[in-house]
Amino acid sequence: MDYKKGSALEGIKILDLGRVIAAPFAAALLADMGADVIKVEIPGIGDDARDNLPKKDGESTYFMNFNRSKKGITLDLKKGKSIFLKIVKEVDIIIENFRPGVMDKLGLGYEELKKVNPGLIYASVSGFGQTGPYSKRAGYDPIAQAMSGMMSITGQPENAPLRAGASVADTMGGTNAALGILAALHYRNRTGVGQMVDISLLDSTIVSLASVSQVYLTDRTVPQRRGNGYVAGAPGGSYQCKDGFVIFLALGDSAWQKLCKTIGREELLEDERFKTNQIRVKNYLQLDELITEWTSNQTVSEVVDLLLSVGLPAGPILDMDQVYHDPHIMGDREMFTTINHPIVGKVDITNQSIKMSETSPFVRGSSPLLGEHNVEVYKSFGFSEEEIEEFKNNKII
Amino acid sequence: MDYKKGSALEGIKILDLGRVIAAPFAAALLADMGADVIKVEIPGIGDDARDNLPKKDGESTYFMNFNRSKKGITLDLKKGKSIFLKIVKEVDIIIENFRPGVMDKLGLGYEELKKVNPGLIYASVSGFGQTGPYSKRAGYDPIAQAMSGMMSITGQPENAPLRAGASVADTMGGTNAALGILAALHYRNRTGVGQMVDISLLDSTIVSLASVSQVYLTDRTVPQRRGNGYVAGAPGGSYQCKDGFVIFLALGDSAWQKLCKTIGREELLEDERFKTNQIRVKNYLQLDELITEWTSNQTVSEVVDLLLSVGLPAGPILDMDQVYHDPHIMGDREMFTTINHPIVGKVDITNQSIKMSETSPFVRGSSPLLGEHNVEVYKSFGFSEEEIEEFKNNKII
Repeated sequence: MDYKKGSALEGIKILDLGRVIAAPFAAALLADMGADVIKVEIPGIGDDARDNLPKKDGESTYFMNFNRSKKGITLDLKKGKSIFLKIVKEVDIIIENFRPGVMDKLGLGYEELKKVNPGLIYASVSGFGQTGPYSKRAGYDPIAQAMSGMMSITGQPENAPLRAGASVADTMGGTNAALGILAALHYRNRTGVGQMVDISLLDSTIVSLASVSQVYLTDRTVPQRRGNGYVAGAPGGSYQCKDGFVIFLALGDSAWQKLCKTIGREELLEDERFKTNQIRVKNYLQLDELITEWTSNQTVSEVVDLLLSVGLPAGPILDMDQVYHDPHIMGDREMFTTINHPIVGKVDITNQSIKMSETSPFVRGSSPLLGEHNVEVYKSFGFSEEEIEEFKNNKII
Repeated sequence: MDYKKGSALEGIKILDLGRVIAAPFAAALLADMGADVIKVEIPGIGDDARDNLPKKDGESTYFMNFNRSKKGITLDLKKGKSIFLKIVKEVDIIIENFRPGVMDKLGLGYEELKKVNPGLIYASVSGFGQTGPYSKRAGYDPIAQAMSGMMSITGQPENAPLRAGASVADTMGGTNAALGILAALHYRNRTGVGQMVDISLLDSTIVSLASVSQVYLTDRTVPQRRGNGYVAGAPGGSYQCKDGFVIFLALGDSAWQKLCKTIGREELLEDERFKTNQIRVKNYLQLDELITEWTSNQTVSEVVDLLLSVGLPAGPILDMDQVYHDPHIMGDREMFTTINHPIVGKVDITNQSIKMSETSPFVRGSSPLLGEHNVEVYKSFGFSEEEIEEFKNNKII
């Protein structure tokens, strides 16, 4: 199929008040889709993530990734409250991830803003959501991973719980925010009515566990850590090869028969320890040992090629260097791209994952410098050059 | 804030041809938002997930979770091709997760379907996407976790790579599909033009790694497994208490000072091994040992309460039983809900995570039995009772 780059969200105006990952990520997804996203930062300071590692020539490339495709302005929300309210009248969407209550204290909570713009869609991303006893706590990805149950099921049974190495709570929270916003936009297109979208990192992570927590919800058995193995079938998981690790699954009887034939161990089909799937799940450690006898004499690509050729799912466990050089990932799927930063020049970042035939989202350009588009953006909202100069002198922007 | 239950996607008709998790999950999210979702299954067999564990009274509760809020019909896509084409004319969206090429072989690929319905939005979720050398491979969550780099950064440095315990690739793929669909819907509302949305589990997982892969993208350092610790700062991670594990972060100098004062170890502020954040990151194992001296004499809730009271982020590592009974999660946020299944009766499943003030998504009812709504749905598409009876007799439905 062909993907035409395009702008599904052309003409939609978004103010991104977000910091660090979750809200800025949601805004970046929508910016790649063609929305006009204006990042609003504290004058002289900016998003905390401007100081996050990794950096290149003193500039945070972490910040660049989550704020590509946006314009940038500065605004002191206390001193510049009336300026903010004037801008809010003309935008479609606000995204923020302050602790619940912060915007209310500034007199800029959703209830106030909808008075000046009833069609406004106001998305808030927080650690624990806008309601409930933990709502005022600061939210961080690892806390959401801990309190969702994710860590309790990640790791080896004999070792301590582990978090997923990536900020999956932040990413899922950000994606859910973008999804809620587009649902609200569809409703507003039909009715003219805006609304608040309330996303929590903890809720978002809980949903991602559904297939595992369903075990608990069904019979109150508490799911345990099981390394890379499965409760549903065996063998399956990661296995040591001569040059790295391979992952494959042969869950169910026909896959198990296929595997035994393929690795030349058909006698295992008669072995009482592995007779049925249920027994294999019970004896998975012994089974994995036998499989490792085979894999440890092969290279990862030998195992992957052989298993794929007989129709069993298999893949290498890649590190970031291998991911980056993979002909599928970096070739056809173009999962990394390069922006041109005004100070640092060319910087590689992660690309969009959503591909569409008519309006495929794409990275439109670098993250902004702090206040880079102040003049252009404030002018577009009807402020004069004199006013903008005055805002600067009074440190409002 | 108040959440009014509502239907942002009222009047939108979706055919869900999905199996197992990713595509059915995407359709469930949109069904909770009020779209009219019809699950289409193979007559007499149905979605493979109808056989997935866990089960209650012989019925898969796993299937129930991912197919709540939907109606169900059966259709043999080969024998019933003309019936399918008649229905496609009247729907807005199709979601499927066959291997790329399967629908084309049936003569029901996007290029064919758009001839009968140019406004159709056709979302395909696959392991590797519609293009590239791996596109025809079967896609499974663990393979996406392995090939995205996720596993390479999950686990302890001295042990083998691990996957996140939950099917995060499936969940992120499904959420991305729903997001791409709503962007396409916004475009179609404006232009009348439909399109194909191409989502891969691998691409979706790669995006969730962006904050870590940015290290590689910046200076080609390959990120390593680091347990529950951070490259950006120390101390932070999970610590053993008397009755379980706690997670907390004190990254940065002011948080470090606060922590030392709070635990009564101010002499550590003068310790050369922990003088700066950079040095603390280097000596994190020694530091974690000292912190465990403190936590191991406390309960989890003592540590959490104390650290929260001084403004440091902290939380317990909860297992599924604790998650289910948590007053915030199960109380105010209602993250689990109960459906009433036609055979099994009351079954608990995971709730929606997106909350909205005007049209909050909600679980609308049980998953369907195989073909439960055949008569009602086929009638609504203009087929007569006689025709429906004939389809049944010929095993087309």
